[in-house]
Amino acid sequence: MTIPTSHQDILDSKSILHLASLGPDGQPEVHPVWFTWDGSHVKVSTTKARQKHRNIERDRRVAGTMLDPENDYRYLEVRGEVERIDEDPDGAFIDELAQKYLGQDRYPWAQPDDERVIYFIRVDKANTMG
Amino acid sequence: MTIPTSHQDILDSKSILHLASLGPDGQPEVHPVWFTWDGSHVKVSTTKARQKHRNIERDRRVAGTMLDPENDYRYLEVRGEVERIDEDPDGAFIDELAQKYLGQDRYPWAQPDDERVIYFIRVDKANTMG
Repeated sequence: MTIPTSHQDILDSKSILHLASLGPDGQPEVHPVWFTWDGSHVKVSTTKARQKHRNIERDRRVAGTMLDPENDYRYLEVRGEVERIDEDPDGAFIDELAQKYLGQDRYPWAQPDDERVIYFIRVDKANTMG
Repeated sequence: MTIPTSHQDILDSKSILHLASLGPDGQPEVHPVWFTWDGSHVKVSTTKARQKHRNIERDRRVAGTMLDPENDYRYLEVRGEVERIDEDPDGAFIDELAQKYLGQDRYPWAQPDDERVIYFIRVDKANTMG
């Protein structure tokens, strides 16, 4: 799946991803998260203690929307699956996100007992508006 | 369910609601939408032709996030169900949304064959951050 060229700029922007996952009974939940795009996957960071992670361990299907930060009426929706989950023991990826979103080298809110993981979301469908 | 007082201002802001619903196989989908809060329900407008509406007719469970327009790190998530669906034959509610978001009396993108409906989302759970 390729993202339409017309909306790839949103992938490189500081847009927040509104990531939907499925709760225990299949009900939707949404969490706003930071993300990066590596050319083939949307990458997201979380910790193992989060509800979101328990959802993904149960059911890998996700979807998410990102607005153009300059224009609320232009957006990208992605749907797909968390294809791979990597450990992020030294926080290299959350630091990369802090660099992108905050312009800081280190993620400022790290907790000693955070067990960070990285989701690689495979995009099976992309919808655009605007 | 009451929304925490601390975050009720977001309900009155021009924040976009990222509304998750469930596709035919229970997979999540997300659509950015306008909304209002009437004191007890989140109200959203759609047309009967939309994918979102086919989802809701099948399964009424939804969730959605709204960022504080001034601060990406402050938000409200609501989870619940579309408790009621009303017809909006003369577009009164979509015009109310156009007034809120665009400052215009009439919704400028109305199509002659739009069959507008209003969702009344009952909030069963609210999560806040920031």
